Amino acid sequence: MKRTAFFISDGTGITAETLGQSLLAQFGNIEFRRLTRPYIDSVEKAQAMVQQINAVAEAENMRPIVFDTIVNNKIRDILAGANAFKVDIFSSFLSPLEAELNASSSYSVGKSHAITHTNNYMERIEAVNFALDNDDGARTRHYNSADIILLGVSRCGKTPTCLYMAMQYGIRAANYPFTEEDMERLVLSPALRDNKDKLFGLTIDPDRLAAIRHERKPNSRYASYAQCEFEVREVEKLFQREGINFINTTQFSVEEISAKILVEKGIERRFK
Amino acid sequence: MKRTAFFISDGTGITAETLGQSLLAQFGNIEFRRLTRPYIDSVEKAQAMVQQINAVAEAENMRPIVFDTIVNNKIRDILAGANAFKVDIFSSFLSPLEAELNASSSYSVGKSHAITHTNNYMERIEAVNFALDNDDGARTRHYNSADIILLGVSRCGKTPTCLYMAMQYGIRAANYPFTEEDMERLVLSPALRDNKDKLFGLTIDPDRLAAIRHERKPNSRYASYAQCEFEVREVEKLFQREGINFINTTQFSVEEISAKILVEKGIERRFK
Repeated sequence: MKRTAFFISDGTGITAETLGQSLLAQFGNIEFRRLTRPYIDSVEKAQAMVQQINAVAEAENMRPIVFDTIVNNKIRDILAGANAFKVDIFSSFLSPLEAELNASSSYSVGKSHAITHTNNYMERIEAVNFALDNDDGARTRHYNSADIILLGVSRCGKTPTCLYMAMQYGIRAANYPFTEEDMERLVLSPALRDNKDKLFGLTIDPDRLAAIRHERKPNSRYASYAQCEFEVREVEKLFQREGINFINTTQFSVEEISAKILVEKGIERRFK
Repeated sequence: MKRTAFFISDGTGITAETLGQSLLAQFGNIEFRRLTRPYIDSVEKAQAMVQQINAVAEAENMRPIVFDTIVNNKIRDILAGANAFKVDIFSSFLSPLEAELNASSSYSVGKSHAITHTNNYMERIEAVNFALDNDDGARTRHYNSADIILLGVSRCGKTPTCLYMAMQYGIRAANYPFTEEDMERLVLSPALRDNKDKLFGLTIDPDRLAAIRHERKPNSRYASYAQCEFEVREVEKLFQREGINFINTTQFSVEEISAKILVEKGIERRFK
């Protein structure tokens, strides 16, 4: 039977989710039902939340796990009455931090993912727009203002990676897809050559690539294993010839690919 | 002077960053220099990390704050020797969780953002592609498979919100922009009317909209306050007339907008 886990917050719930997911991932043999309950920011909502938790505990004959980032003491006290195993993130760490920093926590709600926290919020949206505007290799005139330019065959993971880096870190990521036509004589275009220090390659296992392309264009030459294998081989040769660092995306999530690229290129996240 | 905070992980660093940022956000009066150090997954890297932390402590005459999610005991022990104030996330919570779940943690590295954890990883990439493919209102034939369809004027935040929901939650979000031409006689198209339960509106303060549009097309009619005010007013009237829930995005981050929409529509996150 699945064990129920709640991620409860008076804000978006992202911190509670992220930490909770990380901890639960360490128990691979247990199946969890995961429920996020953001914006529990009033006495009434907290009381309803306690009822919901208690109902689950009774129905499943097992108290749920609750990860919470409630900041308000009144609401926290109400939740404390629920029949649950609580992983109380803020109360575990805020007091020690207050002592170390010799400062008082503001105990203010929803700070962590609020727009006020993100001074350069517009920068981040700009970065998303940058990724969207520089996604297909058609325009190269903005490469000067790019932080990074990803290279690779069609459908190897460039676009989601660029969007993730933009959204999460405000990094301006362009991407340049090598097309079938490029394969005849694969070279770096002048625009790419002029920005060589920004280039980073993505590659992928040909069978995986074929499966992904098949979803888009079933039974096409584009999706054939032979074509995929050919394109990947040619592009990897180019990366090696030109000394461009690259990563095989087959086994990695977008988060992992992004983190690895930032480490390899020595780019710091643009935190607020 | 800024206080230095490190987010250290043997994986992507996302969990350490997210929790660390949340906690630091409670100390609004202190400025922090934030450094993420992912993939600290060997004895050598850990030793180099300790040196780096100690160098900062000495240079700043103040020990750094270290948020870490190191799973491996050997690496954790090395880091423990650094001159830092440590917020040790896993060791604080894993033992109590083991007792509660009556199971042993696998103590395996990089589980939380790995592809293995995300059973429906492909679903998430599909969701990103869905958002990109259904971004401009030109195609409406996929609305049947959408989880949600965002409506609003150009540049009110639809695209970043759709992409965030796709990336973070695997939710298929389309968006439909009302154009200047639509304003003459603003109605829901048949495709929208057929999916009325999926519709959600975004609106924005006209002066903010004008500023955003001005970045794109300076001194255009499109970016004029009068035009922005007119479009926002017409679209809000439509939302009210049709009983479509909507949210004003001006004061909210993409994370907050997404979380609020999911709550209002009663959509659960698609967790792995």
